[in-house]
Amino acid sequence: MFQRLRWLIFGSPVPTYHEHLKRLDNPRALAVFSPDALSSIAYSNQEIFLGLAIAGGTALSLSFPIAIAIAGLLVILSLSYYQTIQGYPTGGGSYIVAKTNLGTYFGLVAAAALLIDYLLAAAVSLSAAVAAIGSVFPVFWQYRVPTALVLLALITVINLRGIHETGNILSIPVYGFIISFLVLITIGVFRLGRGDLAAIGYADVPGTESLSFFLILHAFSTGCTALTGIEAISNGVPTFYPPETKNAGKTLIYMALIMAILFLGSVGLTQSLGVIPQAQETILSALAREIFGRGAFHLIIQITTMGILVVAANTSFAGFPRVLSILARERFLPRQFLALGDRLVFNNGIIFLALICGFLIFLFDADTHQLVPLFAVGAFLAFFLSQTGMVFHWFRARDRRWQLKAFLNGLGAVVIGITLIVVGVTKFMNGAWITFLLIFILVVVFGKIKNHYDEVSEELTLQKLPPSLKPHNQPRIVIPVSSVHRGVIEAVRYAKSISDTLIAVYVEIEPGTAAPLTKKWREWFPDIPIEIIPSPYRSFIGPFLERLDEIDARYHDAQLAAVLIPEFIPAKWWQGFLHNQTAWSLKLALLYRRRGMGYQRMIIDVPIHLKH
Amino acid sequence: MFQRLRWLIFGSPVPTYHEHLKRLDNPRALAVFSPDALSSIAYSNQEIFLGLAIAGGTALSLSFPIAIAIAGLLVILSLSYYQTIQGYPTGGGSYIVAKTNLGTYFGLVAAAALLIDYLLAAAVSLSAAVAAIGSVFPVFWQYRVPTALVLLALITVINLRGIHETGNILSIPVYGFIISFLVLITIGVFRLGRGDLAAIGYADVPGTESLSFFLILHAFSTGCTALTGIEAISNGVPTFYPPETKNAGKTLIYMALIMAILFLGSVGLTQSLGVIPQAQETILSALAREIFGRGAFHLIIQITTMGILVVAANTSFAGFPRVLSILARERFLPRQFLALGDRLVFNNGIIFLALICGFLIFLFDADTHQLVPLFAVGAFLAFFLSQTGMVFHWFRARDRRWQLKAFLNGLGAVVIGITLIVVGVTKFMNGAWITFLLIFILVVVFGKIKNHYDEVSEELTLQKLPPSLKPHNQPRIVIPVSSVHRGVIEAVRYAKSISDTLIAVYVEIEPGTAAPLTKKWREWFPDIPIEIIPSPYRSFIGPFLERLDEIDARYHDAQLAAVLIPEFIPAKWWQGFLHNQTAWSLKLALLYRRRGMGYQRMIIDVPIHLKH
Repeated sequence: MFQRLRWLIFGSPVPTYHEHLKRLDNPRALAVFSPDALSSIAYSNQEIFLGLAIAGGTALSLSFPIAIAIAGLLVILSLSYYQTIQGYPTGGGSYIVAKTNLGTYFGLVAAAALLIDYLLAAAVSLSAAVAAIGSVFPVFWQYRVPTALVLLALITVINLRGIHETGNILSIPVYGFIISFLVLITIGVFRLGRGDLAAIGYADVPGTESLSFFLILHAFSTGCTALTGIEAISNGVPTFYPPETKNAGKTLIYMALIMAILFLGSVGLTQSLGVIPQAQETILSALAREIFGRGAFHLIIQITTMGILVVAANTSFAGFPRVLSILARERFLPRQFLALGDRLVFNNGIIFLALICGFLIFLFDADTHQLVPLFAVGAFLAFFLSQTGMVFHWFRARDRRWQLKAFLNGLGAVVIGITLIVVGVTKFMNGAWITFLLIFILVVVFGKIKNHYDEVSEELTLQKLPPSLKPHNQPRIVIPVSSVHRGVIEAVRYAKSISDTLIAVYVEIEPGTAAPLTKKWREWFPDIPIEIIPSPYRSFIGPFLERLDEIDARYHDAQLAAVLIPEFIPAKWWQGFLHNQTAWSLKLALLYRRRGMGYQRMIIDVPIHLKH
Repeated sequence: MFQRLRWLIFGSPVPTYHEHLKRLDNPRALAVFSPDALSSIAYSNQEIFLGLAIAGGTALSLSFPIAIAIAGLLVILSLSYYQTIQGYPTGGGSYIVAKTNLGTYFGLVAAAALLIDYLLAAAVSLSAAVAAIGSVFPVFWQYRVPTALVLLALITVINLRGIHETGNILSIPVYGFIISFLVLITIGVFRLGRGDLAAIGYADVPGTESLSFFLILHAFSTGCTALTGIEAISNGVPTFYPPETKNAGKTLIYMALIMAILFLGSVGLTQSLGVIPQAQETILSALAREIFGRGAFHLIIQITTMGILVVAANTSFAGFPRVLSILARERFLPRQFLALGDRLVFNNGIIFLALICGFLIFLFDADTHQLVPLFAVGAFLAFFLSQTGMVFHWFRARDRRWQLKAFLNGLGAVVIGITLIVVGVTKFMNGAWITFLLIFILVVVFGKIKNHYDEVSEELTLQKLPPSLKPHNQPRIVIPVSSVHRGVIEAVRYAKSISDTLIAVYVEIEPGTAAPLTKKWREWFPDIPIEIIPSPYRSFIGPFLERLDEIDARYHDAQLAAVLIPEFIPAKWWQGFLHNQTAWSLKLALLYRRRGMGYQRMIIDVPIHLKH
């Protein structure tokens, strides 16, 4: 029943040999790798507005200049990643590039930054998706958290099923978004030029603060969220058709071009038209309404925006578990993240992401504006480490025109480094400190985990062991007895089949119960000694373990007695509550009693399955 | 560390031989057994007022007549329980009396009713205690739930420590309450007689409903909460000094007398003075303020009221776990409720009561008025069964003047039966239906549990077993192997010590890993066969269990192979997350795989304690 339901929702198991690489042509690759980067214009535009609005109209007239600065950054980043594609044709994620060129420590910092940014990207994208659709149907605004969580659940299930996606389905929302926005910008610019729309600008907007340099930098920083996701293509070079690097490079350039047009176009238009977001409407929706009025096209714009944002959240579900699995393979994370589930996906990573992302949405009330201060810091840190790593890479590679390549990546590293400092400082008090702290904690945790695994494999190594070890003697077997019943009889039969030395032990919790039990025991097992332990404080485990040690000490052969435990397994789950949990507690106590490597006491379970 | 903290809070263990009966003289016995009954006037008075107030002044003038009717019930109940004391000098709880005379089924109904009433008594008393102190310090009103929960936690800890109470400490709040209320009533009546206070009555209070017979009965029903707890002395006859029955009987009469005076006095005064409770003040507090004004005496009244209410809640902590343990001893409840903790108290019952009581307080917002509709129904059901049982008792005993005794208990049964119907009907829709439903569910659960235990002991009986059973053959041992490391080497050494037939099994989850492992295995253990199971769907448990069945089938001797599992035990708890939980999952799968009584597959655990 449960199995069937599971298969219905998540699909039936997929065998391992189905795992192979599917190549993508350039348009499909663009649909797969660009949503994260493209969709960010859905919120970055509004964040620039909100950042400047507190200083009023004068400040808001800086929107477009700030957008131009960010577009400049986009160009530099694209060039840098174009280089990365050339240098790492097998896929150059920030972790790989930083680790290979700057060492493990910086690699881990990049990985931690990436993980946190994937997480935030999913939460931010889903929140923005709800805002996009809420701008048309305000009812969603009231239920933003549940709506975002439903979208999250949907993506989670789809990813647990495994999307063996070749870009076909993704093309619809992605190209739908690109085309509808290009139409929007073209018509907007055209109508503005013709004088259909008044270029009123933001002159009249009142402010509450005076314009400061810090405020401008802060608006720039929040706008930089537009750039997250630009590294995606460089991670996926092997999925392109050969010549892979050429195709990937070309696609990157196209993507950057589209991003620049959409971003500059939308910011430019909102500023020229003096578009202002409302409490229940995003700035992009207000822009579309200004240009087309309420109607079918406005709805299309909002739906494609929501679509690309959901797809963008989905990319986190591909990236996050993959980074976890890479770290787990190198033993920086629990190996559970390495296990491919029965649908050939990293289940644990997906569930982990869904849980934390859901928690973030709940905590920040599915509000993009509250989440953004934490966001992008990680991305820029990863960009910076990756670009710096590339400089070292070229210095080492010294191939054709390596000086130019090193210069370009160096330029990227410097510019992004400065941006990182600006972003880090201006957003620090708003929430970026949380991101930095989390990155630090993650790196420490990675180190601790790696250290543990290394020590364990050192401990388990066969290197120093002699090829043949002295076998153990037949173990003595101690059987805890609570009364003489059929289960105990069975247990003794099993014990006899593996050892000749049996000792029964009875802990007398209720005074006076030992005598009748001993009598009955002697009738059944005259040849097996039974030892009675008084327990004035009515506890079982303590006195039993003490007696075990005593028995071990008696024989002077350094061998520990095995404990054989008859355990009742009732027919129905609720009946478990009706039987003393002594067997479980004893097993746990025996397992976790620490005496170092040599302390290996066999625990033998004889399950007694009850019919009732 | 943890042990020390535990001992600090709950005290160090107490040996079993400390368990013996402490006798109480009559004044101390009164302090121990009366709080539940006496404290109920703290809320029953107000409940009568609230029940009548909706019909205005005319209805409220019925307060005192209703109080007289309840006092009449009190007399009849006291006489009835006086008889119970004579008939059951070893302690006649409702469960015992009903079960002995009416049969097991009615006994269980009485027990269920008692349990629910103990629970509600604790929740109601604590809520009323907060209301009492909140009437002086309104700040508590705002934090009523946390305050009630803190009091609950306090009582729980005290009871887990075990109160070997001889009535000394309890005498302070109990006699404090009795004396201060007697003073209050005396002075109130005196000042009223002298004309210091105006006997304005409730004439002016406006009502919203017309006075109906149902409304009067309903007010009577809620007022009947005053009578809960009256049976306490009859449960505790053996704790009195000899002659026990005489002393207990005398104390019961004194208690009833005090109850009658306090109840009639306070209801009479509130009616005469037209005292009205406020949103943040109880009617008793308003009465005390009316007579004494705000001041020390008002404060004393409220503090002693709170004191006796907390003590009353405490009596539930004595009674509830005791009833659970009686039921557990007769196998109607899990035997965990029978276990005496290391402080000689029924820990599990105490914790169980505290949890449900806390949940009730939270659910009903620590509001006495919301809890009362559920309350008292159980008490009257238990009273009724107990009195009916007593009638049967006298008919069977036929001792001196048995006809008179039977008549008195019969009168009690009839009057309480009618009251029960009135209470049940008038409060049914308000919440009494919940109580009835819970009683029904509890009785069904008792039956199910008893049934399970009976079937199990039937299944485990040695009656039909031949005195000597054929011993088992030496078991084959299957060892699941994940790689060849030191832990596996240890496991094999242990396996060799108990059997000559070993089979290693490797589940190949990652294709291509079997060949190198097999090679390494053959180097180390050339004499032990290793079997490779391909697992295209990457699961471990399923293919392993299938292979186990195959191995069993190979030998045609109906014996099941044992499974030996090497299990890593890391040094620190958090490291547990870093190791695959395969060993645990496999053990659970093996334990709970059901194949009936004959399916006993030994599970052998070899703990490998890691240094790191």
